[in-house]
Amino acid sequence: MAEHVAALEKSLKKLLEEKKYQTLKDVLTTMNGADVAAVFEDMDEERTPLLFRLLPKELAAEAFAELSPELQEHLITGFSDKELHELVSELYVDDAADLVEEMPASVVKRILAQADPQMRKEINEILRYPDNSAGSIMTTEYVSLRPNMTIAEALQRIRRTGIDKETIYTCYVTEERRILGTVSAKDLLLAQDQNTPVSEIMDEHVICVNTLTDQEEVAQMLSKYNFLALPVVDADNRMVGIVTFDDAMDVLVEETTEDIEKMAGMLPSEKTYLRSDAWDLFKHRIPWLMLLMVSATFTGMIITGFESALSAQVVLTAFIPMLMDTGGNSGSQASVTVIRALSLGELELNDLPKVVWKEIQTAVLCGVALATLCFGKIMVFDRLILGNTSISVMTAFVVCATMAVTVLIAKIVGCTLPMAAKKIGFDPAVMASPFITTIVDALSLLVYFTIANALLF
Amino acid sequence: MAEHVAALEKSLKKLLEEKKYQTLKDVLTTMNGADVAAVFEDMDEERTPLLFRLLPKELAAEAFAELSPELQEHLITGFSDKELHELVSELYVDDAADLVEEMPASVVKRILAQADPQMRKEINEILRYPDNSAGSIMTTEYVSLRPNMTIAEALQRIRRTGIDKETIYTCYVTEERRILGTVSAKDLLLAQDQNTPVSEIMDEHVICVNTLTDQEEVAQMLSKYNFLALPVVDADNRMVGIVTFDDAMDVLVEETTEDIEKMAGMLPSEKTYLRSDAWDLFKHRIPWLMLLMVSATFTGMIITGFESALSAQVVLTAFIPMLMDTGGNSGSQASVTVIRALSLGELELNDLPKVVWKEIQTAVLCGVALATLCFGKIMVFDRLILGNTSISVMTAFVVCATMAVTVLIAKIVGCTLPMAAKKIGFDPAVMASPFITTIVDALSLLVYFTIANALLF
Repeated sequence: MAEHVAALEKSLKKLLEEKKYQTLKDVLTTMNGADVAAVFEDMDEERTPLLFRLLPKELAAEAFAELSPELQEHLITGFSDKELHELVSELYVDDAADLVEEMPASVVKRILAQADPQMRKEINEILRYPDNSAGSIMTTEYVSLRPNMTIAEALQRIRRTGIDKETIYTCYVTEERRILGTVSAKDLLLAQDQNTPVSEIMDEHVICVNTLTDQEEVAQMLSKYNFLALPVVDADNRMVGIVTFDDAMDVLVEETTEDIEKMAGMLPSEKTYLRSDAWDLFKHRIPWLMLLMVSATFTGMIITGFESALSAQVVLTAFIPMLMDTGGNSGSQASVTVIRALSLGELELNDLPKVVWKEIQTAVLCGVALATLCFGKIMVFDRLILGNTSISVMTAFVVCATMAVTVLIAKIVGCTLPMAAKKIGFDPAVMASPFITTIVDALSLLVYFTIANALLF
Repeated sequence: MAEHVAALEKSLKKLLEEKKYQTLKDVLTTMNGADVAAVFEDMDEERTPLLFRLLPKELAAEAFAELSPELQEHLITGFSDKELHELVSELYVDDAADLVEEMPASVVKRILAQADPQMRKEINEILRYPDNSAGSIMTTEYVSLRPNMTIAEALQRIRRTGIDKETIYTCYVTEERRILGTVSAKDLLLAQDQNTPVSEIMDEHVICVNTLTDQEEVAQMLSKYNFLALPVVDADNRMVGIVTFDDAMDVLVEETTEDIEKMAGMLPSEKTYLRSDAWDLFKHRIPWLMLLMVSATFTGMIITGFESALSAQVVLTAFIPMLMDTGGNSGSQASVTVIRALSLGELELNDLPKVVWKEIQTAVLCGVALATLCFGKIMVFDRLILGNTSISVMTAFVVCATMAVTVLIAKIVGCTLPMAAKKIGFDPAVMASPFITTIVDALSLLVYFTIANALLF
């Protein structure tokens, strides 16, 4: 939490204890919705309804939309029908739809009963769309204009209807709900002649998305084009809503967190870390841990297969962790770079040959550098300084040759698997460190024992 | 690249070959700056100046700001002074500052010579601020209003000066460059009485950042408060510029990519993957690979220390990869979760005890589940199915006990190190998988051999 809010929180708690409600109200009114929500999350749950009733209507709705589902439910439970009605009417329809999605059935029933028929219809429309689609994050509240309106009329319309819209800064010129063009509030304000019809100043090259477009793609388009909002159209090409930049920012952050969780071998979670209990964390972490542990059986089998060689030259065992780790790290570097580039749209599947060639070149550079350093380290540190004479020059050579080959294999596997996953429709992010490490471990041991067998026995 | 752009690109190339310049111009004019830039990046470099000259001035500036530094330099080299002057006057000042920062000295000199004195001053001001600070990403072009202006006068001022501003949607009411409040274009448009002074409708609770505030913090504030822009003030509390949401979105994406690169053991890179050659990739990847390889020396020394035990019970070696990998994966899960929560501001340093306690609970759950599965796997798969009778029940027990203890240690190390790094002012992101894995490897082997020594020999 920002420092200024943490400082405020102390005073608010004190004022609440002293029951100075008027002062509390005055202070809360100066605050931003997101900050009020942060303060509420840190309060005793029982005190929140009292505090919430002190907020002016608009701020109350703003803060409510930012609260955790648990606290939202707690507050609603304490509301009278009238209070609930007031809150719901003040919410933007996309926030109301989010709320309905999070609440248990009994609460949903109360919310929908208190929503105006028009809002109820719009909430239901948004809820029809699949999770993570443009339809599910859009709002149906946008300003639409007719093509033959003059600029003065358009400004008049914004004045009349704008108050309830999530943004008035991009207006959509439509005819029978088909988009003819967009006009920005800036264009309307800066226009010279107030009698020009909007169809003359509108931008006809409209970029829009479908209700089913993936939310991450929508967010990336908003970010790429620096738009405030993107219109959403249905299968018949009729406009049904807009996605605004603030929701797009949230999506970017959420989707990246999901990618990062997957890359670290976890199932993505919707709860923040502090809100997850140990059981939540366990459920999201154990599947990959188990899968990867069982996969390590192969690595164990490879070692068992070379048991006789290992017992003849126990010194070989000492280098297993270094070879495995370096292989794993080299592979992760390649896979994580490729996964991120894919998710940012910098790489396409048909770039695969370019990618593999680049990784091979990089692997040769890294392999040579690492093998040289490793050879030096073994000869100087292990043999001279530690005096471990059981390591022959040939052993050092075997280790370093394995190192170079492992890095090469790791980089190729690391860049290929995420692209292969994407090709067959899987999420590339699961092909990151843990998975790549397990595969590269087995391969590096195979290389190690093969080279050792050829040169040492 | 979006499909509709890829399709357009083909036609554009064809039109260019056929020298149908008027048609080319008409088509380009319908496109968005970001898409034009994407097309340019894919063209033969020699053809880009010709194509660029076909663009209308405003679109040319928009597209130019989105081009790679290499292509920007190529284009500028071909420009006459007059062309360069036209381009520079059309650029937003923050884009011009970015350009100056990327170009070699000789090109910078030409750019600054062609900028108006006012713009030159503003560019230099932005360049004074350290990299990654609010000052370095802000623009100095914003709308400022006087407190005693009426709403009608304010709208008039926007009409007169707005054309050159990056946003007109948030206006700043200032007196001697100190911010008194903000007024949104929405408030101005929706106001009932045009004669009200702006000081009466302005929002006095202004949230602003300092020129030296870290850009990531600025981006997160914009995202948290859903603002279109945040004002930037200098050390004397005087307003010097604004950071707009589109730049904040770019910062969020960039900073996350940096975090992800660090988490995978790479030095962060500014170039995209396809623009980096093997040598770039090598330079960013080799330092961590070398460091981690050398650190693995400790793991090797631990194994060497237990060489006699290992040669007596070679079967123990077969479980080393599984124990190391499971430890590494458990640790990465904890560290990556904590790193992400820290970077999103969900966790503070004083949450450490809560975090450690949560990870211990999770580790016990994971440890018990993994140890049980592992015991079953060894007894059924390794002993019964593979018939590996050299694995005694006691050996299986040693492996599973090590597994449980390793998971516990890994989770504690994994959650503690990133927070410790942050505490002493390092970036928590470097305390991710590769680093944690190396530490946990050594610790898990120590546990393994200690338990084995106690129970098996």
